[in-house]
Amino acid sequence: MRRWIPITQVKVTDTFWRERMDVVREVVIPYQEDILHDRIEEQEPSYAIRNFRIAAGLEDGEYYGMVFQDSDVAKWLEAAAYSLAVHPDADLESRVEEVIAVIEQAQQEDGYLNTFYTVKEPGKRWTNLRENHELYCAGHMMEAAVAYYEAVGKTTLLDVMCRMADHIDTQFGPEPEKRQGYPGHEEIELALVKLYRVTNEERYLRLAEYFIQQRGQEPHYFEEEARKRGEEDVKVTHGLWDYSYSQSHRPVLEQSTAEGHAVRAVYLYSGMVDVAVETNNEELLKVCQTLWQNVTKQRMYITGGIGSQSFGEAFTIDYDLPNDTAYTETCAAIGLIFWAKRMLQADLNGSYGDVMERALYNNVLSGISWDGKQFFYVNPLEVRPDVAEYRNDHRHVMTERQGWFGCACCPPNVARLLASLGQYIYSHDDEQITVDLFVGSEADFKVQGQDVRLHQETNYPWDAAVTLRLALESSVKFELAVRIPSWCRRPELSVNGEAVDLSQVMNNGYAALERTWEDDDIVELQLPMQPERVYAHPSVGENSGRTALMRGPVVYCLEEVDNGSQLRDIQCPGDAAVTESSDAHQWPWAVCLAFNGFRTVFPEQALYAMGQLEYESVSVVAVPYFLWGNRGRGEMLVWLREC
Amino acid sequence: MRRWIPITQVKVTDTFWRERMDVVREVVIPYQEDILHDRIEEQEPSYAIRNFRIAAGLEDGEYYGMVFQDSDVAKWLEAAAYSLAVHPDADLESRVEEVIAVIEQAQQEDGYLNTFYTVKEPGKRWTNLRENHELYCAGHMMEAAVAYYEAVGKTTLLDVMCRMADHIDTQFGPEPEKRQGYPGHEEIELALVKLYRVTNEERYLRLAEYFIQQRGQEPHYFEEEARKRGEEDVKVTHGLWDYSYSQSHRPVLEQSTAEGHAVRAVYLYSGMVDVAVETNNEELLKVCQTLWQNVTKQRMYITGGIGSQSFGEAFTIDYDLPNDTAYTETCAAIGLIFWAKRMLQADLNGSYGDVMERALYNNVLSGISWDGKQFFYVNPLEVRPDVAEYRNDHRHVMTERQGWFGCACCPPNVARLLASLGQYIYSHDDEQITVDLFVGSEADFKVQGQDVRLHQETNYPWDAAVTLRLALESSVKFELAVRIPSWCRRPELSVNGEAVDLSQVMNNGYAALERTWEDDDIVELQLPMQPERVYAHPSVGENSGRTALMRGPVVYCLEEVDNGSQLRDIQCPGDAAVTESSDAHQWPWAVCLAFNGFRTVFPEQALYAMGQLEYESVSVVAVPYFLWGNRGRGEMLVWLREC
Repeated sequence: MRRWIPITQVKVTDTFWRERMDVVREVVIPYQEDILHDRIEEQEPSYAIRNFRIAAGLEDGEYYGMVFQDSDVAKWLEAAAYSLAVHPDADLESRVEEVIAVIEQAQQEDGYLNTFYTVKEPGKRWTNLRENHELYCAGHMMEAAVAYYEAVGKTTLLDVMCRMADHIDTQFGPEPEKRQGYPGHEEIELALVKLYRVTNEERYLRLAEYFIQQRGQEPHYFEEEARKRGEEDVKVTHGLWDYSYSQSHRPVLEQSTAEGHAVRAVYLYSGMVDVAVETNNEELLKVCQTLWQNVTKQRMYITGGIGSQSFGEAFTIDYDLPNDTAYTETCAAIGLIFWAKRMLQADLNGSYGDVMERALYNNVLSGISWDGKQFFYVNPLEVRPDVAEYRNDHRHVMTERQGWFGCACCPPNVARLLASLGQYIYSHDDEQITVDLFVGSEADFKVQGQDVRLHQETNYPWDAAVTLRLALESSVKFELAVRIPSWCRRPELSVNGEAVDLSQVMNNGYAALERTWEDDDIVELQLPMQPERVYAHPSVGENSGRTALMRGPVVYCLEEVDNGSQLRDIQCPGDAAVTESSDAHQWPWAVCLAFNGFRTVFPEQALYAMGQLEYESVSVVAVPYFLWGNRGRGEMLVWLREC
Repeated sequence: MRRWIPITQVKVTDTFWRERMDVVREVVIPYQEDILHDRIEEQEPSYAIRNFRIAAGLEDGEYYGMVFQDSDVAKWLEAAAYSLAVHPDADLESRVEEVIAVIEQAQQEDGYLNTFYTVKEPGKRWTNLRENHELYCAGHMMEAAVAYYEAVGKTTLLDVMCRMADHIDTQFGPEPEKRQGYPGHEEIELALVKLYRVTNEERYLRLAEYFIQQRGQEPHYFEEEARKRGEEDVKVTHGLWDYSYSQSHRPVLEQSTAEGHAVRAVYLYSGMVDVAVETNNEELLKVCQTLWQNVTKQRMYITGGIGSQSFGEAFTIDYDLPNDTAYTETCAAIGLIFWAKRMLQADLNGSYGDVMERALYNNVLSGISWDGKQFFYVNPLEVRPDVAEYRNDHRHVMTERQGWFGCACCPPNVARLLASLGQYIYSHDDEQITVDLFVGSEADFKVQGQDVRLHQETNYPWDAAVTLRLALESSVKFELAVRIPSWCRRPELSVNGEAVDLSQVMNNGYAALERTWEDDDIVELQLPMQPERVYAHPSVGENSGRTALMRGPVVYCLEEVDNGSQLRDIQCPGDAAVTESSDAHQWPWAVCLAFNGFRTVFPEQALYAMGQLEYESVSVVAVPYFLWGNRGRGEMLVWLREC
């Protein structure tokens, strides 16, 4: 199993991403902190910190907010920890410690920690795993605890969450005196594995494994607990069809298609990979691979978005990928990255890196405005504002990014992902370093007992060149495996100026360079980028007759501000040259695309017309999808009509 | 004002329509009668007749069914009456009389008639016009009363409904002691005008006018009555945005776009035209014309369907015409025909006849299976069964016609429209006969004081020829105005074998033949039909890059049973010859269409692929849209991808 690189051992120096990460550090994390402390006047108070203070007996009051309000604090702590890891800030650290102190005081004698049940529903702990989020909140706080421990070495929060994990372990398990339950919203599974990895406490791994394997077993726990609550219709799942909503429709080993709430699904699958690799469970890993194929070959948008339907925020059926009613939640694309990263650890294959990159540069980045102040929860591939704002079946689609959300899951999730981006660039074990993403960075590894420093330089995703430089104390033999993105038609690679015949070294999408490396060795990669037309499988009815423009990993879109309205009518001739352009935008560094297209000239005042239509030439500009919606309300379209 | 031809004075002899009308008479009306009497075991009991028996004191029991259950009985009576008018049937007539006798006994002392309020909510009459359907049910029963009176000359039901109308007149009006209300669901307006026309009782016309003009006035009646019911939030409109749902968002004279529930809207507009022509209200007629332009130039499907959204069964915004989530209720297309027919009476213009024809041959006929036993409520222009059956935002779309509906408005509405089709073929006044539809028939008019018999022969909608023969006692001067459909590129017309220069006689889409007609004069019309490609306005995003095939008034579609699945991928080359075919179907008389198209050959197992795609040739068959779904579950598509 390839390991994650510790957050402190990788420094992102990248032009493109460093700015995004600075926005997270300078704008998002402080804003979120103010939100949690109810210091933003124009926003509804979140009560998130206050709930902990009330639970700690430091303040009087009522619980307020979603049942998973605690997780907002956890996600902020996690993001702040990642930031502190590479950007020490004594002030922030002391404020983090203050919050942790409150959390510690809110923890109950027996280790239990959850402000909703402590303040609002004392005595009802663990009675509704299906709908309430105790284990989910615990999972997020465990992730924060691990991040903070790894970032600054302090065990303050880790100790709290180990006590909570120990408490949970006394409550859940196969033993008759325990509950045979598991969370309605997965998250704790992957968190327990993180906790296991820093504490080496096997019980945490076993507990994660139990939650995963118990899921969907009969008799169904959600029915058992509903019966205990005295409910009559124990099958009711708050208006959502069945247990597939929470992936508990059958045991995970019997699942072969991605079903239900997309975020829950990919959090579960991430935990499944973690448990599979830590317990050497080939059968479980095989299930993950089958689910991966289903998601990425039948149920994923070109932007890396998943979840085709607002109802249930869910996967639907194969090839059902509507563009304008897509749900494609930012959190779901983030979860897909979590999963892809873990698949890469278990099974080195370029497709995982390709998908990670696809989601990162498109559906995740579109979730946050360029200035870091506004967010999309839903990331459709087409917006016609008049339609989206009027139609009931488009209610989930916002035509402009919003300041914050009542259900504020996405903004802090973007923050923690971007703040920890360094951890997604590489993986390694004792004999191998893999380069999974092209992000300028300095990283320190221990390989074959030796320190290896890897320096990556690139102007990705705009330019072809990636340079990898090694700094070694002495020569050491290991494999440097560099992902070659599947979008690249003519990649080139050289070591110390000497061309490598890629056909000889390619292995599942990676150029596997096994040799005895010397200090100062240089690997130069050329990934020539050009505008490409991409087509969807004919079963994706929405995209038939349509093409999407990509360049490298970046998906492009048309916006009304550049091209006028009625974007669906714009035709991109099959033989039109799509050229690169960079003029006329507020982002001179971004590569935009341009082509000469056509628009229909239609008889005035007619709704329908017979016979030959006429067309007029128009100049069309396409901008990176991740930049859409930064210039006001207007139409947006990814899949262009081809003629 | 041109008048309706009395139902007894027109006999439909048409090949195409006679069979449909026989199906209505032989299958639909008897089946519906069984439903109303709860004699169909496999269907939920309707309680429709039983509610009347209970209200009449003939039976004990509770009210059951929708609040508008009475209208089901009314619509059946109306259809049965039309059938009796041209197809006397003593048994049916006596059964109708039995039902009328029960209705008469269910009528209250003061004339009030509504079984819901009489049985279930005594004392609460007229307290919730917004949501309950007292006036709506009364309207339908008035229409039945007029139809039965005109069909067989009996006043049994007419007397009942005049008493009810008189009672309503004591309850509603501008006088302070009356209620300043109007129905939540329009229908009574047009019915009162019908009642006025047979009784000559001006009060009924004034009442219709009052209901129309009072609509949407401030203070808003629906708020007043909600306040009287003791409700706090008097603006609540059961989850639907605002008063536009029931066209009461503003006074009708201030309305310029079609809003809200589509059936309600077109019933209202029909009543508005009736009142406008009877009271010579030019301003009101102008509003009707403006609304007509809005509906037919911005908000109507190519099939004559209206109502783009399931939520509220409603119009949405201009050019929002999604194909697969269309609501396009059968009743709404029927209401559009009611409205078109009335517009034609007020304002002779071919566009009204064109739309009437469009709705009739497409959205209305698709609402009933060829054998008359199953029905569509919703008539989408595309169905992908897997998607429609899975997705929550497609829940209203049935992939196969259903036996009957809990809310059984559409099947009896189809029955009453088709049974009265004769009335839609012609209009006339003292100096003019208009031929609005091409339906083989014999009709008797009184023009200039003389009897005129007009005999129409045609094999429309399949063949070009329409022959009109006049039978006169003696020569008489009048205008015979024959609609020339706008789809026809090269119409030809001759009188007694002599060609008429159409450019000299065309007037708003009608060939106006004014002359002194002799007995046995023959007008021969040629309306050459050929497969045509039709395109939608570029603002209809769903159809960009797509074409619909039509031939004459008939819209065509592809079905999976003929062409395999993934219909959206089938490409119809812009230069492909679309030929007529009639093979291989269970309907040898129907003209089908065929062309050589292409399908995409896509890399196996890929979801997205770069670069040039390959295509393979396929033979494609298109069938009339009105025949779709008669051969089992499968995909259907109207708007074809053009390449």
